[in-house]
Amino acid sequence: MTDLATAFILALPPWLIDELPALPESIVDPVERMRLVNRLADRNWREGNGGPFAALVVERDSGRLVSVGVNVVLASGISSAHAEVTALGLAQAGLGAWDLGGDDLPAHELIVNWRPCIQCYGAAMWAGVRSLSIAGDGPELETLTGFDEGPLTADWAAQFEARGIEVTIGIERDAAIDVFRQYRAAAEAGGVVVYNARGSAD
Amino acid sequence: MTDLATAFILALPPWLIDELPALPESIVDPVERMRLVNRLADRNWREGNGGPFAALVVERDSGRLVSVGVNVVLASGISSAHAEVTALGLAQAGLGAWDLGGDDLPAHELIVNWRPCIQCYGAAMWAGVRSLSIAGDGPELETLTGFDEGPLTADWAAQFEARGIEVTIGIERDAAIDVFRQYRAAAEAGGVVVYNARGSAD
Repeated sequence: MTDLATAFILALPPWLIDELPALPESIVDPVERMRLVNRLADRNWREGNGGPFAALVVERDSGRLVSVGVNVVLASGISSAHAEVTALGLAQAGLGAWDLGGDDLPAHELIVNWRPCIQCYGAAMWAGVRSLSIAGDGPELETLTGFDEGPLTADWAAQFEARGIEVTIGIERDAAIDVFRQYRAAAEAGGVVVYNARGSAD
Repeated sequence: MTDLATAFILALPPWLIDELPALPESIVDPVERMRLVNRLADRNWREGNGGPFAALVVERDSGRLVSVGVNVVLASGISSAHAEVTALGLAQAGLGAWDLGGDDLPAHELIVNWRPCIQCYGAAMWAGVRSLSIAGDGPELETLTGFDEGPLTADWAAQFEARGIEVTIGIERDAAIDVFRQYRAAAEAGGVVVYNARGSAD
């Protein structure tokens, strides 16, 4: 049984590592934060790493950029490697803290280009962030991209709030939808893999 | 910005790596599969790696052991590193396939010592497994261990079935509860960290 895997790595793709030195040290404006997320989400699928999704972790008040993540399911070969899991894990790795809400840390915020899927809903809930900002939460993501997002409860946002996590919805919404729309056009042209619970969709 | 983390690793703890050579190549009996899960879950919290949770991925029909995972939130410093995420990721890393349900692969099953939390519910849904076996699904986990499992929908099992994932509940249930009970006793004695959405509980 010595051939069982004992570790796996989630890593940013080379193009994003190349971008890091040019990113701002901090981003205070919520619109600017989401613009960066939308831009990275758009580049991500074009580069072939995974779905059109990106996420940031920032210090909520100072805006200090703590981590950047994109969906690297295809690049890493790991199905949990959504943008949120990647960004949250990188923030925790960088800070050496599994709880981003620890008493000795400033409040952290997760910024994503749409409402998280059911997996990342939980990942955001357990990571210790104090706030979540998303571009939108409607059916557009599933309708346009074909991704199954899973069964969230109707009170999903209230469930965050009950755990001390503020939710802000609707920043740069149209720009987020435009990314999904372009992804869809490419998918219809046969240029990308849409992966799902039941494997790649035809 | 060159100090942003660019990768993180989820790894099995040394004690479990040491156990791998002695594990069977395959486990056909569902009860034997769960006994192994319960035993690893129990050892995991005692070793201080994380919560009392373990998971296996096996080939559903042959029983071939594909991966073993435990909760390594504390050991890895990554809050998403639950037993299911670890086992599924290791299975995918070992097979070189982000979709365990790919056409060229045998059916895979995930075995866990209780109903997954909301994050791992999604992780199991997206990994491509065709079946999920759990020791139990009642409130005992949260009541005994203090872990918040998050808001699953009432039809959580039907949602799996609708995606072609068979759910089996109630294998070695009493033994699973006994692990949680012992964990609780140790937590009450101040011997373990119970982590949560809002950090460690007192």
